[in-house]
Amino acid sequence: MSELVGNVLVGQSGGPTSVINASVAGIVAEALNHECIEEIYGTLNGVLGILNEDLIDLASESQQQIRALKHTPGAALGTCRYKLKKQQDFERVLEVFKAHNIRYFFYIGGNDSQDTADKISKLAQEQGYELRVIGVPKTIDNDLPATDHCPGYGSVIKYLATTVREVACDSEAMGQGDLVSIIEVMGRSAGWIAAGAALAKRRDHPHDPPHLILLPEVSFNQEKIIEDIRRVLKREKFCSIVVAEGLVDADGNYVAANAQTDAFGHAQLGGAGDALAEIIEGSIPGVKVRVAKPGLMQRAAAHAGSKTDADEAYLAGQKAVEAAIAGQTDKMVTLIRGDDGNQYTCETGLAPLSEIANGVKKLPAEWVNEDGVSMNYQFVRYAQPLIQGETLVPHDNGLPVYARLDKVRVDKVLPGYETA
Amino acid sequence: MSELVGNVLVGQSGGPTSVINASVAGIVAEALNHECIEEIYGTLNGVLGILNEDLIDLASESQQQIRALKHTPGAALGTCRYKLKKQQDFERVLEVFKAHNIRYFFYIGGNDSQDTADKISKLAQEQGYELRVIGVPKTIDNDLPATDHCPGYGSVIKYLATTVREVACDSEAMGQGDLVSIIEVMGRSAGWIAAGAALAKRRDHPHDPPHLILLPEVSFNQEKIIEDIRRVLKREKFCSIVVAEGLVDADGNYVAANAQTDAFGHAQLGGAGDALAEIIEGSIPGVKVRVAKPGLMQRAAAHAGSKTDADEAYLAGQKAVEAAIAGQTDKMVTLIRGDDGNQYTCETGLAPLSEIANGVKKLPAEWVNEDGVSMNYQFVRYAQPLIQGETLVPHDNGLPVYARLDKVRVDKVLPGYETA
Repeated sequence: MSELVGNVLVGQSGGPTSVINASVAGIVAEALNHECIEEIYGTLNGVLGILNEDLIDLASESQQQIRALKHTPGAALGTCRYKLKKQQDFERVLEVFKAHNIRYFFYIGGNDSQDTADKISKLAQEQGYELRVIGVPKTIDNDLPATDHCPGYGSVIKYLATTVREVACDSEAMGQGDLVSIIEVMGRSAGWIAAGAALAKRRDHPHDPPHLILLPEVSFNQEKIIEDIRRVLKREKFCSIVVAEGLVDADGNYVAANAQTDAFGHAQLGGAGDALAEIIEGSIPGVKVRVAKPGLMQRAAAHAGSKTDADEAYLAGQKAVEAAIAGQTDKMVTLIRGDDGNQYTCETGLAPLSEIANGVKKLPAEWVNEDGVSMNYQFVRYAQPLIQGETLVPHDNGLPVYARLDKVRVDKVLPGYETA
Repeated sequence: MSELVGNVLVGQSGGPTSVINASVAGIVAEALNHECIEEIYGTLNGVLGILNEDLIDLASESQQQIRALKHTPGAALGTCRYKLKKQQDFERVLEVFKAHNIRYFFYIGGNDSQDTADKISKLAQEQGYELRVIGVPKTIDNDLPATDHCPGYGSVIKYLATTVREVACDSEAMGQGDLVSIIEVMGRSAGWIAAGAALAKRRDHPHDPPHLILLPEVSFNQEKIIEDIRRVLKREKFCSIVVAEGLVDADGNYVAANAQTDAFGHAQLGGAGDALAEIIEGSIPGVKVRVAKPGLMQRAAAHAGSKTDADEAYLAGQKAVEAAIAGQTDKMVTLIRGDDGNQYTCETGLAPLSEIANGVKKLPAEWVNEDGVSMNYQFVRYAQPLIQGETLVPHDNGLPVYARLDKVRVDKVLPGYETA
């Protein structure tokens, strides 16, 4: 393998997480170690920034700010849900890469983003332009194949399990056998996030909150759930429910008020909690239902983030650079769990982008208890290591301080481009 | 003043907060210092527990658990919204007090609770039963008169300002001039909580999120707000809105979907965020609106609580005991801000319960900027000291650990009582 000299481009894509910036920090830190890398650029708003030639000079950012990225939520480079559609878009990407001698492209994102990275890589190969493309996994949805878990997932479930435990303190204090509290969490088609709330239960306390977890994988049976709620109310005086936004009934219809679709044709949900509240209030006379919907809060809650998650996101960034320098391309970094049953360990590997693109890892059906509303020890064994350790966020004047990049622009050298 | 020998009873009432348990810890710790106090009891679920003679022995709890109350959300003794209505209820309360030689009654709560405490105290005086009643302020609503601020308020606004800052990181990354994110917060009739989100702005950065704060005190003018949003979207590419659940229009009608009433005749709100989202989507073509509704999460978020707030809640509990021992009765502990302009200090005082009961402290109109959607430096100067310092919550296995009381029951000595 010959040494490939040139510039790095980093991009972020899709929905932000608490730790997607930690991956940027890992990439920048590692890239600085290699002399074959000349400049380290970031693209503003993912592929949109490439099309528009909106690049920034990451090496000129202060070390403090790059370090602060390790605990900063959102996506410091900006992100997008723009999907490269036409051949012309891909040609433009390569044109920009060539103009700025981009030889290393690191794209941090989920399924759709890895698909985009894969297509860019293939076009470069077709054109004989030497480019190394490595994807870095990112999604709170935890649904990427080939990787044990995804950076972003540990933090969202740590925050939600914390929240479930806290709201339960409140509801237990208020409950007189008539209080149902619902927390509606993200999860369009998979229950990974809702399932994570199960970690709020203490070991050997199956009756701890959350009492019912309603997953998209288990079709909603109104009569059964109402019976479950009645039983919990009788036993505990209150009932704590976590519901995934993508809850569906036996006919596959969403148990939610409104369904819209986003740019990728995915349904934009919201309202499963409110819809459920209405059903419960209509079925159990005198019951009070309180709905909380953390929405974007859950994927931005770095103040309650998992240190394990942030460390792994950083590691994935570093390893992406190492792999590219070593001559790898067209791969995504994966997280591999050590097989020592006693102590959790995590290493990284690589998987072909084509395997990741548009693939989906399902929540194993055998990790759901027979009751359909709780998770078994297999899930807990899987998820518990991911929430260990507390991210240390510096505070100033009572509030967390997050990174703000200077975003020094790289001079444009190409004519403008019309995005769709 | 003669030394009054007898037992203590502590109760919690109304909606829980992140720090209402810290006041219990302060009361128990201080009560142990005084030999005239023989037993320290707690009532389960406030006045309901008194009527039902459901008392627990707080002195038998472990010191660890009492200390853990300082950072535990919810209301460890249980709370209630039950309102003593008939004379018979009040008679029963005194009967229970006499049966258990309760000579010191500490009631931690808001307006309604202090009203109840006042009535109990007056009846005891009428009957010549020596009883010292001291209220301890508690409410995230921050609307009690006579006190500079209320324990519970600092923590809720610290959590919400943190959340606004984090969700803004997310929305800024996603925004393309078309993203509005709404956080609906508690605040039935006053904007104290919504106003607190203003602390998310850095000093001298008036354009920082939250961009618009919609208060119940400023009637909702749809055209004006839509114009405000358009302007922010143009300038910032995204718009961060905090809306109080009690937002009303010029006719005094709630800008929310459904309005119900609770046991006290207060409207139970929810839906101002969703209603606002609908208005925005209908008014600005192509805009995407994301609504988060923390609901009960905000008043239970001890993991992001204010140390100042928890310390003051504890102090208020201690001072209640000191005052009662010193012969005071029929008073509520108040928080008094030091008049040294440079350094925030807080002492306690006492105010007559009758002054507190059903009184309301309004958010000063002169603390709202002329634009009607932001707070000025007077508010910031008032609120900023209340969020200083981070509550240290111990974690185990990745999650916060909260107190769990043993709740050893005090033997009942009276016949049962039928509550309404």
